[in-house]
Amino acid sequence: MRFVGEDDVQRGIRTRRFEVVRGERTVPGLLWTPYDAQGQRPLVLIGHGASGSKAEEYVVALARRLVHRHEFAAAAIDGPIHGDRTLPGADDPTQLMMVFAKIWGSDPTLTDEMIADWRAALTELQAIPEVGAGPVGYWGLSMGTIFGLPLVAAESQIKAAVLGLMGNVGPTKERIIKDAADVTCPLLFLLQWDDELFKRESAFELFDLIGSSDKRLHANKGTHAAVPSDEFEATQTFLARQLQG
Amino acid sequence: MRFVGEDDVQRGIRTRRFEVVRGERTVPGLLWTPYDAQGQRPLVLIGHGASGSKAEEYVVALARRLVHRHEFAAAAIDGPIHGDRTLPGADDPTQLMMVFAKIWGSDPTLTDEMIADWRAALTELQAIPEVGAGPVGYWGLSMGTIFGLPLVAAESQIKAAVLGLMGNVGPTKERIIKDAADVTCPLLFLLQWDDELFKRESAFELFDLIGSSDKRLHANKGTHAAVPSDEFEATQTFLARQLQG
Repeated sequence: MRFVGEDDVQRGIRTRRFEVVRGERTVPGLLWTPYDAQGQRPLVLIGHGASGSKAEEYVVALARRLVHRHEFAAAAIDGPIHGDRTLPGADDPTQLMMVFAKIWGSDPTLTDEMIADWRAALTELQAIPEVGAGPVGYWGLSMGTIFGLPLVAAESQIKAAVLGLMGNVGPTKERIIKDAADVTCPLLFLLQWDDELFKRESAFELFDLIGSSDKRLHANKGTHAAVPSDEFEATQTFLARQLQG
Repeated sequence: MRFVGEDDVQRGIRTRRFEVVRGERTVPGLLWTPYDAQGQRPLVLIGHGASGSKAEEYVVALARRLVHRHEFAAAAIDGPIHGDRTLPGADDPTQLMMVFAKIWGSDPTLTDEMIADWRAALTELQAIPEVGAGPVGYWGLSMGTIFGLPLVAAESQIKAAVLGLMGNVGPTKERIIKDAADVTCPLLFLLQWDDELFKRESAFELFDLIGSSDKRLHANKGTHAAVPSDEFEATQTFLARQLQG
């Protein structure tokens, strides 16, 4: 892992850009830690939604709250074709969403490569003394669940997860069913009652398939992107409670 | 309204038993206020579940937390054939549940009489100086929603409600549909994913019918009676946020 550019320090929080090189891929990320952090602490991995990036507003806000209020570390990486991995000429949000939907349906390596990106980043983040190998949480909605569900299923270090805004749909339904059953950590699942992208019935099916014995679903009125701010706060409280032990 | 017996004062919380006489009915209740309360404050009405009473553990615990943490007032009344209104020889919980189910299905006046009991109690509670006519909330699950949904629909003073553990079922489905549409205050609805008494699909239907534009649903894994303690805390936080203004 290499840090890129200068540290940004604001209000006691250090933000660092990093790159993890994995074969021919470069995985760009952001790491947030308390400015004066020493030693191991809980780490929350944050997966952004389609057409967003590691640096989008709600990702940064969540990461900063986790650091500020709980002294956790938080990290986000760009999804495939997003953020610093955006393809030339494909940076319009609507176009990006369409291109993503297309490759999600057609590239069978997409998910496994993104999981490998996350796991490579996790290994290298844990080698940083002020992160260390403490409890790990995952937070990701929509595309952050498309990749997060299989990641949480595969990575036994993840001890708590916030997922949602996705249903039991996708190019490989058998895989979703298997991955959902393999998710066994405490889970908070978010759903938007009037979600125009993932119908609530299919989200209920996905929640039902998840193997965790400790799981809860929060549904709010509104469309896909209209998750209320107090629900974001609830996700942060949930992760804090689970990972602080 | 008359107070019955002696005040109970513990840890800064005064608990009083009261009776409201309404025609031939006597409505027995409990009122919780801060010991040294002066002047108007938010009031939460708490409706217990079938086979319980105004004095059961989770009712008392919720009331005491609302008083202790937020300086609210809280009040509970016994449901028909429950608590101090239990019929002679019908005090076994299982038997009580069965008798309740029977009269719910057969006595068309049951719901309206209970709503009238609540409204009579509310009027008299608001005449007490240390309660006053502040914002009113309602909290009730299962039988507390069977009666609470029509109460919240009818009583415009109720500005926030916690309902749940009930579905779009009952002896008068047309009435449930109408009452649900008439509920327009901010709402938190609880659901148990493996509820053996009210299937989740029917609870989703009821939630969907509720007229409030500001509504959210929290579902937890487990059976009807297995609502986790942190969810009780979430309901209390919700009411505090809504009623404190």
